[in-house]
Amino acid sequence: MSDQEAPLRNGVEHKIFEVLPFVDDDYGGVIVEMKTPMDTKNFVAALRDSFEQWRLQGKKGVWLNLPLSHVNLVEPAVKEGFRYHHAEPTYLMLVYWIPEAESTIPLNASHRVRVGAVVLNHNKEEKYGSLCGSGIWKIPTGVVDEGEEIFAAAIREVKEETGIDTEFLEILAFCQTHESFFAKSDLFFVCLLRPTSFDIQKQDLEIEAAQWMRFEDSASQPITHKNDLFKDIHHICSMKMEKSYSGFSKKPITTFFDDKLGYLYLNKQEDMEQPIS
Amino acid sequence: MSDQEAPLRNGVEHKIFEVLPFVDDDYGGVIVEMKTPMDTKNFVAALRDSFEQWRLQGKKGVWLNLPLSHVNLVEPAVKEGFRYHHAEPTYLMLVYWIPEAESTIPLNASHRVRVGAVVLNHNKEEKYGSLCGSGIWKIPTGVVDEGEEIFAAAIREVKEETGIDTEFLEILAFCQTHESFFAKSDLFFVCLLRPTSFDIQKQDLEIEAAQWMRFEDSASQPITHKNDLFKDIHHICSMKMEKSYSGFSKKPITTFFDDKLGYLYLNKQEDMEQPIS
Repeated sequence: MSDQEAPLRNGVEHKIFEVLPFVDDDYGGVIVEMKTPMDTKNFVAALRDSFEQWRLQGKKGVWLNLPLSHVNLVEPAVKEGFRYHHAEPTYLMLVYWIPEAESTIPLNASHRVRVGAVVLNHNKEEKYGSLCGSGIWKIPTGVVDEGEEIFAAAIREVKEETGIDTEFLEILAFCQTHESFFAKSDLFFVCLLRPTSFDIQKQDLEIEAAQWMRFEDSASQPITHKNDLFKDIHHICSMKMEKSYSGFSKKPITTFFDDKLGYLYLNKQEDMEQPIS
Repeated sequence: MSDQEAPLRNGVEHKIFEVLPFVDDDYGGVIVEMKTPMDTKNFVAALRDSFEQWRLQGKKGVWLNLPLSHVNLVEPAVKEGFRYHHAEPTYLMLVYWIPEAESTIPLNASHRVRVGAVVLNHNKEEKYGSLCGSGIWKIPTGVVDEGEEIFAAAIREVKEETGIDTEFLEILAFCQTHESFFAKSDLFFVCLLRPTSFDIQKQDLEIEAAQWMRFEDSASQPITHKNDLFKDIHHICSMKMEKSYSGFSKKPITTFFDDKLGYLYLNKQEDMEQPIS
């Protein structure tokens, strides 16, 4: 932040600060991304000058992205009226709504997304299980990262926990629960996969052991009977093996506004294959 | 924060600060919730004394919840080694991982969840639509709040946009896209609902108009043909009206660890009704 020349305004010497570095967003607002270090005094002066411009330009939301290295600017930003919006390990995003009209600032992400992977080997009539503490064999599970496809997360988790390569078939069911993680909610997608390799190589340190397991043995563990979700998953799997259950398959689509790739999960039943896929 | 008496330690006068107010979490860590204001000097001293105790006790993750009113403590906390974890408008959550072993601190929420509600009136063979800017009739849509059931959000959005009361039937399909909101991903659930009232009373200010609409008229809007997702939703709806499509219905379940209520969404096909519900 280099100050410019200091002209007289209303007869008083007045420093003009550069406005903060910003780009326009798609909703009539601006995104400020601080790159170089700045002391709090210069920051507040530049922020106020920037707001003068943004108000004249009719800007709405002002997003302020402060990397961890700019933590000295958090307190002055809040004192200037910014509120927290979201944070990741390396940055804090604050926001300020300029108009008098009600804010249309979107809410923060609300859900964590997890997958559980059932790998069914039709030839052997067996089911994959992994041992995870206290003698319970459970299906591979894990968190879907932001930006990651649900089906890709299921394939990755199976690979990480067992070394097995798989192909995604269907989402059999999913479960929504709440306050799983502070106030955040949780979506757990149960995926069905087909193995394309069979040799187990345990890789993940969290996993005690990994093995192929007969479906009946997995279903007869005491925990399966005690737990609603386990019981339902096993019931769905046994119907699936009898070909009397349809989950949701994936279909690539492009998103409406920006032509980005996404996936639609839907019931591609027999009579639907032709018209829809 | 009141200091206690100042005894001699190693012959030097040494103030003992109270440890910060904390509760144990379920994973061998602690959660510090700051309630009363504190200056940065006392905070850093109390934090260091607290860490001495927590290290002796073998604590793992230290969560530090700083309300907006405690913004003065953000910079000292980061300088003591804390990293951002997540933030909501009124607080910032920071975290510090004590052990040398790899951190098992869970990732932040990664997905925003939205619903779109198709309200089908079988008697009239009509479909509900709402006009939202630029002459496009679209189904009611909205964001699922954290802690809110997907099916409840669909019912709420229809009520807010149109005044119509509905009953949830099925999730017809869902769509996952990415970078919908900074780096966060997006899950969009298409829900099918049955109306239990019929008089439209537009309530939401964002909505320009609301009306019942013939299904064919809704499907024949130019936008439906241009957009993958709209086209698929209409195709699924027309199959649904011919009773040749099964989505996922809801079933209440209790979660494994804490007996909290959740919902499983699964294909409750005819032959499944008896054994599973």
